[in-house]
Amino acid sequence: MSRFQPKNPDYRAIAAATFEQQRAMKTLGISIARLEPGEADLAMDYSADLTQQHGFIHAGIITAGLDSACGIAAFTLMPAGAGILTVEFKTNLLAPARGERFAFCATVIKPGRTLTVCEARAYATHDGGETLIATMSGTLMALAGRGTTPEDLRVPA
Amino acid sequence: MSRFQPKNPDYRAIAAATFEQQRAMKTLGISIARLEPGEADLAMDYSADLTQQHGFIHAGIITAGLDSACGIAAFTLMPAGAGILTVEFKTNLLAPARGERFAFCATVIKPGRTLTVCEARAYATHDGGETLIATMSGTLMALAGRGTTPEDLRVPA
Amino acid sequence: MSRFQPKNPDYRAIAAATFEQQRAMKTLGISIARLEPGEADLAMDYSADLTQQHGFIHAGIITAGLDSACGIAAFTLMPAGAGILTVEFKTNLLAPARGERFAFCATVIKPGRTLTVCEARAYATHDGGETLIATMSGTLMALAGRGTTPEDLRVPA
Amino acid sequence: MSRFQPKNPDYRAIAAATFEQQRAMKTLGISIARLEPGEADLAMDYSADLTQQHGFIHAGIITAGLDSACGIAAFTLMPAGAGILTVEFKTNLLAPARGERFAFCATVIKPGRTLTVCEARAYATHDGGETLIATMSGTLMALAGRGTTPEDLRVPA
Repeated sequence: MSRFQPKNPDYRAIAAATFEQQRAMKTLGISIARLEPGEADLAMDYSADLTQQHGFIHAGIITAGLDSACGIAAFTLMPAGAGILTVEFKTNLLAPARGERFAFCATVIKPGRTLTVCEARAYATHDGGETLIATMSGTLMALAGRGTTPEDLRVPA
Repeated sequence: MSRFQPKNPDYRAIAAATFEQQRAMKTLGISIARLEPGEADLAMDYSADLTQQHGFIHAGIITAGLDSACGIAAFTLMPAGAGILTVEFKTNLLAPARGERFAFCATVIKPGRTLTVCEARAYATHDGGETLIATMSGTLMALAGRGTTPEDLRVPA
Repeated sequence: MSRFQPKNPDYRAIAAATFEQQRAMKTLGISIARLEPGEADLAMDYSADLTQQHGFIHAGIITAGLDSACGIAAFTLMPAGAGILTVEFKTNLLAPARGERFAFCATVIKPGRTLTVCEARAYATHDGGETLIATMSGTLMALAGRGTTPEDLRVPA
Repeated sequence: MSRFQPKNPDYRAIAAATFEQQRAMKTLGISIARLEPGEADLAMDYSADLTQQHGFIHAGIITAGLDSACGIAAFTLMPAGAGILTVEFKTNLLAPARGERFAFCATVIKPGRTLTVCEARAYATHDGGETLIATMSGTLMALAGRGTTPEDLRVPA
């Protein structure tokens, strides 16, 4: 059970709908595996189309999964009608992204009215074993009273 | 003219070949626009397949471009036969990745035998104007005496 | 000349006064060397009291100088009556902090109503030569309509 | 009990001795509270000499505590005779550093022959309650075969 209480009772449907609007996730083959208030796990299968020069998944693709996991985790705690943008993140690559399947697991560390801080970890499943391959810490920003379509969005100057 | 002197006279061909081996770059439509010792500029056209929920390019895709630019910039200064891995990076997202075309420009800040530190900036071209949309600072690691094929690569324990 | 236009004509006096209120800066022997809209340079003499186990200045002390430089640089562009807090920063240590004197030079990369992103560099002067020893990228947050005394400050929930 | 097996049976004495050599820690009033293989907790009392403009502990001082905790945690797993340097770290500031006492708790996430990645958290004790005020992720580098005195140390080019 999550230790967070969502402000928006429809958090699950809204977060899933926002994720569905991320066409990059579909292109990368990333989907939601688990969704709780302040927590999100995403999953991705290996694809040779996403590799770097050694045949491992590219660090930027791993980061895309970690960032989306953080965004969705943070979004579950935001009020109805809010938009969300990533402010910053840092990724540490701990081991080559070698495996058949990858998991991106994010949790909110500090929710806030404006800023939410998340941490996430990426795991690779390879030959039946699971390896921690990357970590992320990131900051997400709520755009209060803004919707999630381009027309609604006016980024603060 | 670059302020760096490459150790490998074939740096340009080797760096370009390594980039070509990154199948993720082809998938994302990212190509080399400029290559000098310690510097690399990559270019990417807008694609709706790479967007987040507001129709901007996903922060993870922007990061993939910045990371590859840093990797190639660092790689130009490494000795022949070296492999390269990303240790860590941090991305600050400064403005929505809205535009028709994107540039990822990296430069080596501190080359080293083992670790090389790079900085990179991402720019969006939109309606004829160019906007700084993201910055990266990152650390790359040379794998001395290792080739660039998966068979050659043994990540240090 | 700075490329930024300060909103507060008294920016210089206000920023200097805020810096003076940072008692940690006095303890560490850090002072303002230069102040322009969106830019701040701080200076510190070597002190054996601030060293790590190899006799170099401790990375945390270097970071304190870089963070204060970023904070003051960002503060010069904020409106009258604003408070400021650091959201996050990342430091890359490029060379040992060996020297007689240190400079912390920050510049605003992206000012904003709520968030301001800065970059900073630390230099050591040693035997007449200057070495780049560290870089920082950081995010600062304006607390609108709040003063700079503890009584005025209520951090957003 | 720690999940790590130290390579150096004298890890505790060596790590404590290295910490004692950090004169900055004495200046800041930071001491070792707990030391296990791959883990280190440091403690610091509030001091008005270490504050920023709102009377909270300066973010750079908090970072100094987090960095030293990471360094000591990483050092416990390194072989005898190794030196250690910080490569990079990122700090997220989650809440004002207000309190009577502060704890800096670091743990190794990924040990390595050359690079070790750590995570750390800073807590403030205020009016009997404990608050998570900051997080760090950082990379430390082992300098193999080098001692811990300035004479022994030759940083790799």
